Amino acid sequence: MSSPLRIAVDAMGGDQAPRVVVEGVVEVASFLNRGEELILVGDEEAIKKEMKTLSADSLPISLIHASETIHMNESPILALRKKRNSSIAVALALQRKGEVEAVVSAGNTGAVMASSVWTLKRLEGVDRPAIASFFPTEKEPTIVLDVGANADCKPLNLYQFAVMGSIYARSILGRGDPRVGLLSIGEESSKGNELTLETYRLLERSSLNFVGNLEGKDVLTGDVDVVVCDGFVGNVILKFTESIERILTTHFNKHLRSNLRTKLGALLLKPVFENFRKDFDYAEYGGAPLLGVDGVSIVCHGKSSPKAICNAILVARRMVREEINEMIKEKLKENNIGKRNNG
Amino acid sequence: MSSPLRIAVDAMGGDQAPRVVVEGVVEVASFLNRGEELILVGDEEAIKKEMKTLSADSLPISLIHASETIHMNESPILALRKKRNSSIAVALALQRKGEVEAVVSAGNTGAVMASSVWTLKRLEGVDRPAIASFFPTEKEPTIVLDVGANADCKPLNLYQFAVMGSIYARSILGRGDPRVGLLSIGEESSKGNELTLETYRLLERSSLNFVGNLEGKDVLTGDVDVVVCDGFVGNVILKFTESIERILTTHFNKHLRSNLRTKLGALLLKPVFENFRKDFDYAEYGGAPLLGVDGVSIVCHGKSSPKAICNAILVARRMVREEINEMIKEKLKENNIGKRNNG
Repeated sequence: MSSPLRIAVDAMGGDQAPRVVVEGVVEVASFLNRGEELILVGDEEAIKKEMKTLSADSLPISLIHASETIHMNESPILALRKKRNSSIAVALALQRKGEVEAVVSAGNTGAVMASSVWTLKRLEGVDRPAIASFFPTEKEPTIVLDVGANADCKPLNLYQFAVMGSIYARSILGRGDPRVGLLSIGEESSKGNELTLETYRLLERSSLNFVGNLEGKDVLTGDVDVVVCDGFVGNVILKFTESIERILTTHFNKHLRSNLRTKLGALLLKPVFENFRKDFDYAEYGGAPLLGVDGVSIVCHGKSSPKAICNAILVARRMVREEINEMIKEKLKENNIGKRNNG
Repeated sequence: MSSPLRIAVDAMGGDQAPRVVVEGVVEVASFLNRGEELILVGDEEAIKKEMKTLSADSLPISLIHASETIHMNESPILALRKKRNSSIAVALALQRKGEVEAVVSAGNTGAVMASSVWTLKRLEGVDRPAIASFFPTEKEPTIVLDVGANADCKPLNLYQFAVMGSIYARSILGRGDPRVGLLSIGEESSKGNELTLETYRLLERSSLNFVGNLEGKDVLTGDVDVVVCDGFVGNVILKFTESIERILTTHFNKHLRSNLRTKLGALLLKPVFENFRKDFDYAEYGGAPLLGVDGVSIVCHGKSSPKAICNAILVARRMVREEINEMIKEKLKENNIGKRNNG
């Protein structure tokens, strides 16, 4: 029997909370091992109402009330100050007190991020935590980090992102010796901006499997496991990628209805289109971990499906079980590259 | 009758030079007005061989020999130093001497860019010239600048890009009062990195039609006419967009051949796919002007079709006729925002 493990799930996060979250939690709960438990955090009455419609009585799910909810469009910092009893804050406080080992939320990304850093604190050796997001590619998904936690970065931050991303790719995605690429504007080491030129030199000297610079066109090939960039560039391409599915749909809808031939073709190809949309639908993916905090915090897309919530919970479980934070601390100590050259 | 106008075209630039370039030049030459002339610059023998196969005798096309060619994969700076008689250098020298009013090249982008800045010099009031590229959108194409001339930028540079892009959108694309957006990571003025936060304040105070911050997902909507960003981010999203067509093709090819139903569907929808590919095929677009040099220099994609070369020549003509450099100089003087706040 594995050791006990408890994961708090923010029941109030996401566009269709708490329904979608509760559905995901109930779905995944039956797969848990003995000693593993999920704790739904949020408005007790609303959660209970959702639970009632699902047969969840015998499942290892408990409930902790939080009287406030931070909404998707609220200013994260203001909301966190004003709403001390938000489901996000209560869930993270449980982790700080050691009552749970991980938190999953599909709520306001900025609030989850800020609250996680404040409450859990930074991991030893990490200067800036980063959000690592899955990108669909022509092969296996690639991890890109940072996708928005840090708009301005230093080379040392990017080096640390590379270490964290590499460990995540190995332990959670099972990639042996993950290939790490640096997002830049030319393959040669002499191409880039001040930030990437200096980061290149750090990565080159590290013990990571650094494959060099990538260009924008290489992100979706799946030829690397980890793409490293600052949170500004990462966020721009994340949002950009999210819009591809919409562009495609708009384009095809415009043309598909033009005549009988294309109408019939569209009908026949419906499954292929659906497949493509799904591949590029971020709501299907299992959440983005905030790497570099002293704990486990997973941010899900506001549009997450129950399946995405399930996946995020399974990733959280794996992050705890694999002790990836211990590995990150060790690797940063061992390489010690930042301190030697920048500190 | 309009005043004389001569455009030098680098015959040796592009993956299939000189054939494709000569074809494009011959195609567009018949549309020129009296007094307008195209000058093909490059290897005389090779160009003449291509000209022979096309009936171009009566067209206003002349030829100037250049003994060297800079290839697509050469290091721009080294190649420019070593090959003083490259077609790119010779074409730009003609413009400096006043023998032509514009240069079009589908050659090595870095070499065209560097050589243009060295030879033509910067336009009065412009600190950094920028490459403006068309992006296909759900509506009309949007201009994005800078897409690669400047990896590191200051707020004043981005402000100047906005001015140049706005004037280009109005004079060349015919957009009345062009909407200018700043690429960032959140719509609120408080979102962004150090560069965009400060640029936001400059743009807000300018006389441009500044619509605020855009996110990555907004680039392809076509809701703005001009997207402003540094050359690092711009280059990443340009290359990223170029890969969409490839991703789509790979994805659909994988699924389309899976059974008879999808095979038939694919056959019926072939025109719609072709259309989409064309929309996202940069080789179809008419080149990207290097804005901010004291002259007219248009960089085309190495994979440009004859049609793209045609379009680039027409854009070059329009840039000369509309005197857009005069407008840029005036606008920068009039706003004078950079100098007052940053200089």
